[in-house]
Amino acid sequence: MRVRHKPWADDFLKEHDHIVIHEPKQYKGKWRELFGNDKPLCVEIGSGKGQFITGMAAQHPEYNFIGIELAKSIIVTAVEKAADSALPNVRLLNENAADFRELFEENEVDTIYLNFSDPWPKNKHEKRRLTFSSFLEQYKAVLKEKGEVIFKTDNQKLFEYSLSSFSRFGMILQEVKLDLHAENDPLNVKTEYEEKFSSRGYRIYRSVASFQ
Amino acid sequence: MRVRHKPWADDFLKEHDHIVIHEPKQYKGKWRELFGNDKPLCVEIGSGKGQFITGMAAQHPEYNFIGIELAKSIIVTAVEKAADSALPNVRLLNENAADFRELFEENEVDTIYLNFSDPWPKNKHEKRRLTFSSFLEQYKAVLKEKGEVIFKTDNQKLFEYSLSSFSRFGMILQEVKLDLHAENDPLNVKTEYEEKFSSRGYRIYRSVASFQ
Repeated sequence: MRVRHKPWADDFLKEHDHIVIHEPKQYKGKWRELFGNDKPLCVEIGSGKGQFITGMAAQHPEYNFIGIELAKSIIVTAVEKAADSALPNVRLLNENAADFRELFEENEVDTIYLNFSDPWPKNKHEKRRLTFSSFLEQYKAVLKEKGEVIFKTDNQKLFEYSLSSFSRFGMILQEVKLDLHAENDPLNVKTEYEEKFSSRGYRIYRSVASFQ
Repeated sequence: MRVRHKPWADDFLKEHDHIVIHEPKQYKGKWRELFGNDKPLCVEIGSGKGQFITGMAAQHPEYNFIGIELAKSIIVTAVEKAADSALPNVRLLNENAADFRELFEENEVDTIYLNFSDPWPKNKHEKRRLTFSSFLEQYKAVLKEKGEVIFKTDNQKLFEYSLSSFSRFGMILQEVKLDLHAENDPLNVKTEYEEKFSSRGYRIYRSVASFQ
């Protein structure tokens, strides 16, 4: 996504420290304390402009949500959305989720969402795909027993690769959808990207994979 | 498939007993003897008019092939194809593959092909789908270690179901293709049905799943 540089982004993020968590590693194992309740924790990797994470938080007040987005110029839009909706159950991290184990304790996370992750189509970049085994290792380390990785993409090759990768890792495919929008599920919260590409006729794929 | 009743089918099948094996259970554990060599054995369930099994047998003289088809009026066409091509490495069974373990010994089969199996779309008929766990149990019993089930279908729901079913059973998805014909693989042998439905614009799905 090409996004205009926003020189005011740093200040904006600092001002919204009730939503943006600036030194998140200190909350490892303590996210429930931060939210002030024991609700299950859902984490989205690559939250973009925040439509999914704020939509989910509004739809599911019974869960807490953390969205991670590396790009500063993009996450500011997500922060605006979260601020406008005044949702108590969503926080955002402007982090490169380099290693999940630095951010979360064992069994701390209930569900991980991967939405329209970079497909890294070249074979030599396989290790960068967020469904590569080294990432699955990290997700497993922080997810509860039978915790789920819920993955959406419009990229056919990435989806093919990911189903195989989940399976090789010993995960169970609880659900596979090969044309998600054909079902008109009213509970499906769309990302900005999903809305755009689905409207152009692209299929949206979704899988729900659990660690046994 | 609606097929005209063929009163001559019985006689025809009897006359072609070098291709059609009439009491196949007696060959359990002895298929290599029947073929007269030690080549790996591939089995197709639901061979229809035989385009796939005879095409594969022609393309792969290094394997033996057995095609199973219940419908007498359909299998006669497969027998004609096999007779015309005089392939030494293909046999056909006019059997309801009720239990694979009655036809094959442990470790006797190298690969099982499921092509365009009946989708049995109603939930109450799940147990009839050839990718239901009780069938996977049978395949596992006769397949060699790391033996593969190679599955093609144009039915999206059956494919979604089957990927999940393979995975729940502990099988590994070695390969998933969500639009097989987009790749123009010259080695893909098409079934009659595949040719017809692909030409109408339907996607063809394929998975290769192994027992670990």
